[in-house]
Formats: sequence, C-alpha cells, structure tokens
Amino acid sequence: MKLLSFLVDDRASFGAVKDNGVVDLGARMTGCSTLRQLLEAGRLAEAAKLVASAAPDHPLDKISFAPVIPDPGKIICVGLNYRDHVAETGRTVTEKPALFARFACSQVGHLQPIVKPKVSDDFDYEGELALVIGKAGRHIPASRALDYIAGYSCYNEGSIRDWQRHTSQFLSGKTFADSGSFGPWLVTADEIPDPSKLSLQTRLSGTVVQNTTTDLLITAVPELIAYISTICPLVPGDVIVTGTPGGVGAKRTPPLWMRPGDTVEVEISGVGTLRNNVIAEPD
Amino acid sequence: MKLLSFLVDDRASFGAVKDNGVVDLGARMTGCSTLRQLLEAGRLAEAAKLVASAAPDHPLDKISFAPVIPDPGKIICVGLNYRDHVAETGRTVTEKPALFARFACSQVGHLQPIVKPKVSDDFDYEGELALVIGKAGRHIPASRALDYIAGYSCYNEGSIRDWQRHTSQFLSGKTFADSGSFGPWLVTADEIPDPSKLSLQTRLSGTVVQNTTTDLLITAVPELIAYISTICPLVPGDVIVTGTPGGVGAKRTPPLWMRPGDTVEVEISGVGTLRNNVIAEPD
Repeated sequence: MKLLSFLVDDRASFGAVKDNGVVDLGARMTGCSTLRQLLEAGRLAEAAKLVASAAPDHPLDKISFAPVIPDPGKIICVGLNYRDHVAETGRTVTEKPALFARFACSQVGHLQPIVKPKVSDDFDYEGELALVIGKAGRHIPASRALDYIAGYSCYNEGSIRDWQRHTSQFLSGKTFADSGSFGPWLVTADEIPDPSKLSLQTRLSGTVVQNTTTDLLITAVPELIAYISTICPLVPGDVIVTGTPGGVGAKRTPPLWMRPGDTVEVEISGVGTLRNNVIAEPD
Repeated sequence: MKLLSFLVDDRASFGAVKDNGVVDLGARMTGCSTLRQLLEAGRLAEAAKLVASAAPDHPLDKISFAPVIPDPGKIICVGLNYRDHVAETGRTVTEKPALFARFACSQVGHLQPIVKPKVSDDFDYEGELALVIGKAGRHIPASRALDYIAGYSCYNEGSIRDWQRHTSQFLSGKTFADSGSFGPWLVTADEIPDPSKLSLQTRLSGTVVQNTTTDLLITAVPELIAYISTICPLVPGDVIVTGTPGGVGAKRTPPLWMRPGDTVEVEISGVGTLRNNVIAEPD
C-alpha cells in the first residue's frame, strides 16, 4: 500500500494511492485525520481493507502532496553512513552512527518546490532512504527492529553547506525552511521485506549524481533502530533518514549546487520517485 | 505572570501560579488546552486578566509539573556559548552559535525525576536559561528579537557524555529519555525586560557547580533569535536553550556525574529554581 499525506481544496488529509487516484482515508476513517494518527491507532489493516473496496476519491493530479508525515515527533537523520560519502568528506568511519535532527518546517512534499535561501547559494542535494516508525518501542533489539517499521519513503535531505560548517554541529545547515523533501508516499513494510536490497539514485536536472544500493549502509536499518531506541522511545510517525551516499555537490570540483530552475529526483526501487523543483526564497 | 503546564488528577492542563496555588487556565479558557495553544492564539493578556480576578483552583502541592512546553515544535539548544565552558572543553570560540536539537521525550518537568540511563554513568548537568517564542517570525532582526519572546525558564540540559562523544554530532548524548528538565514555569517577558541581566546557578545535591551571569553569553539572546530565524521560522512554543557555563561535571578531575539519589537545582534570578531528583532507569 502507498500511503500519503496531501492537501485537497485546502483541506489536509491522508490516504492511499489507487489506480491514478487517491482514496481519501482522512475523510473515510472516523477518528483519524492524519497518517500519524492512523499509525498511532494501529489501523493499517483496516485502512488496507477499506482501500481494497473503495474507488479513488480524487485524481492524483488534483491533490497537493504534503510531506509523508507532515508533523513527526522526531526527524532523526544519520550522517556519514556510506563509505564513499565518508571518504569524499575526508572524515573517517565512526563505530557509531552520527545522528542529527531536522525540524518539520524544513521538509516539503513531492512536487512542491524546495527553496534555496537568500543567505546562501551552497544548496546541496542528499538522496536518502527514509523510514517511518509504526509501533512504539524502547531498547528494540536489531533482530526485531523491522517489526517496528510502518514503511519506507524517499528523502532529499537538502543541506546548506556553508551554514552546516559554521560550527561542528550540522543542524544550522540542515533545517532551513523548505530545504528538503519527503515523499512521494510511504510504501508499507509488507511490500519491502528487506530494506537492504534497494537501489537509490539522485538526479539533478536529469543527470545522475548519486547512485547506490542500501546494502552499503555502514549502520544498517535494524542497527539504527536498535541504537536510537537505546537513547529514547521511538513512536509511530517518527522518521529516520538513513544517510546519503557519495556524490554530493559540495565535494565536486567545482561544487555542483542545486539552483533555482533545477529539478531534483530521488528514486528508490520499490518505493518511487520524489521530484521537486528548486526555487529561490522570495525577497 | 508565571505560566506552567501541569497534570492534575491525570488531566493535562496549563495555568498560572497565584499565591500558593494554580489558576487552571486550561479549564477556564475555551479553545485553549495547552500553553502552546495559548501562545499561538495570542491570548496572554486575556489570561493575565483572568488570573488577576480568579482564586487558585489547585494548591501547588496537588499538581504535577510538566515541562513548561511539553510538546514544542522545536527545541533548539546552543552549545559552547560561554567562554569558560568553551575553555574547559578545549575548543575554540566560533563566530556563529553551535546549534543542536533535543526531542520532547528528553525533558521532564519541575520535581519530576530525571533518569540516568542503563547504558551510561556519564550523566552530566547543564544549567541553562531557556526562552519560549511567543510570536511567529522569520528573519527577525536582533533589534526587535525580544518582542518575539513569551518568557523565560530554567533548563537542565542533561547530557550523556560518552554517547555525546560517539561521533562529532552531539544529538545522541543530548536526547536520552527523561534526561533533562524544563521549568518550573515560564516567567513572562514583561517581568524580565533584559535577559542579559540574570544570574544562573546550578547546584548538585547542595554544592554550587555552575555560577554565571547571562551577560557572559557569547551569542546573546537577540542575536540567537536573529541567527535561528534566518534558518527557519520561529513559532509560538518553540524553545531556545541558550547554553551552559563552565563547571560541567565531565571536565572536572575526577569527573562529577549526577547519580541516582542526587538532587539537581538550576536557579535563575527573577525566574525561579528548577529542582529534580536523579533516578536510575529501571531494568
């Protein structure tokens, strides 16, 4: 099942993709008005039954995609989690994953513009596999971690590199308003039994700039969940963005930045393609 | 006015301290059930009038303090923002502030236990001045930044030092469940016209371990708001935790950790004293 959050006629809702349309689960399921609430309520199976018997309520081209989870309690990003990316940054591989946060205001949905800020031109792409937690847990062993995943999506973890380097801490460059994107939808975990068997490609205005397979993650998905859930509870709707492979724009000669007018795509096999145009922040 | 979030008879509410009690604004104000919603609705003046004419609904000793804002959209912490703390860490002062995040699950309220996790004994205190945003803004000039502040509180930015040092990024050590505290209340900004004129003291089981004045912040409150609001919008309920002075436990010889049974206090002049006992995470 492909679950998504969207706007239609200025109303925020969520639903499932069916044929070339959307079954509006927010309108059809009492007591659930967001995808996060659906996950919290553990009503995925009920949603699947409803979608199987329903006709789409809206054509796909009549909705505006929101970030898959517009209001996650946590967006936890993993830095330096592919060896070719660690190498291009001149850093060394750490035993533990490097975690940092983004805030919800930094992400837009599929087909919405991502925004190059006024204060910088160093706007870089980072294609990544994202996962959404479907079940609450703490101290989750890696061996059972996949059971806690609701599904998978694409993430463009857009980064303002000069601001990221203001200090040792990445956050400043990682949470610019509307600088990243999350979508197009959540492919439920039943369709992706093994998240280490995916291929990921980032394209900047048609040119392939990142290309990897997720078996190359240094800290794999189950171990990420084990590590993070040692720190704090994971709850439905939490988002983990697993890291970007080599090929980022900042480490090219000359650097390759996302510029207004560009189109950026992050494609993950079995998930879909997240596409966004780049615009400049208005004056 | 001293505004707080609390639990009474298992109901979450918010209110104001009056005499030795609490005026229950959540019960008295239609359409506002949280302090964050009060700020979003811009109903501070209305709340003040109501409090002036009301008798307390609950004695202070009958409520459980929640974090001042239990569910902030952002908790933005500033690292290395006092020279004596920068010096004790062996780092150098950066031109820009070092920002990192905590998640809401990492904070408890006044008089609630903070939790030393099972996986570490390196549990350190960080007494800090916190501010809560009261009005939405982006690109806020420092000259007008104080207008965007709803008020001030104390924060114990409890840190798990060995996990903080797993990689270059602080988040892992900064967001352990129930490791920090935020309270006891929000003193509204009308009572603190200048946040650079406060004194701050941290005490571990009665011994003074940190002692500073907020004029020593490297990046002062107005400039923090200007910097952060260049990155993304600030909205009501967002929390900025301004940094800790020298004297942290990790940099003492031998290190001085918070241990189960300890009491930690963070006192800020004109704000109040945040007090928490330390317990061990249950097995």
